[in-house]
Amino acid sequence: MIKHVVLIKFKPEVTEDQVDDVERSLDALPGAIPEILSYDFGRDVVHSERSFDFGLVSSFSDLEALERYQEHPDHQAILGKLTSLCDQIIVVDFTF
Amino acid sequence: MIKHVVLIKFKPEVTEDQVDDVERSLDALPGAIPEILSYDFGRDVVHSERSFDFGLVSSFSDLEALERYQEHPDHQAILGKLTSLCDQIIVVDFTF
Repeated sequence: MIKHVVLIKFKPEVTEDQVDDVERSLDALPGAIPEILSYDFGRDVVHSERSFDFGLVSSFSDLEALERYQEHPDHQAILGKLTSLCDQIIVVDFTF
Repeated sequence: MIKHVVLIKFKPEVTEDQVDDVERSLDALPGAIPEILSYDFGRDVVHSERSFDFGLVSSFSDLEALERYQEHPDHQAILGKLTSLCDQIIVVDFTF
């Protein structure tokens, strides 16, 4: 299995409403993309010096399933929206 | 519940043996720290432009349990080791 992990630092001007909108879009993906086996996300609640603003943890059966998810039009749509709101997006994909 | 997510970029000179050593230390933590509810980690396998080298995804019942984990001497020991090997450590803690 593959754990797909994405940590995000938003641009300073990003509003809570915009983050709510991102969450609504993410919420809809598991219903539209069957390759998603698990999909958890949320805003950081600790705010340490090492903290980014937002995290997504998802899992897939294998790399091919992860690629189909990444190429899915619904994912592409939110990736476009998300990229415009972010200063940094860090990703790690590991087998578990 | 709290998802504690840590993404790591190692220093360029870090060896595979050193990463193996980190993994062995991480492997031992769930047995020593009962607050850990889930604990998955591993090396990145995609190596995209956004990829860091290593990821850890763990979960705890609440923030107090996460704090007891972070203060546990076994966690403190590996944190010291890990910090010396890293260029960057990024963390997000979110409720799910």
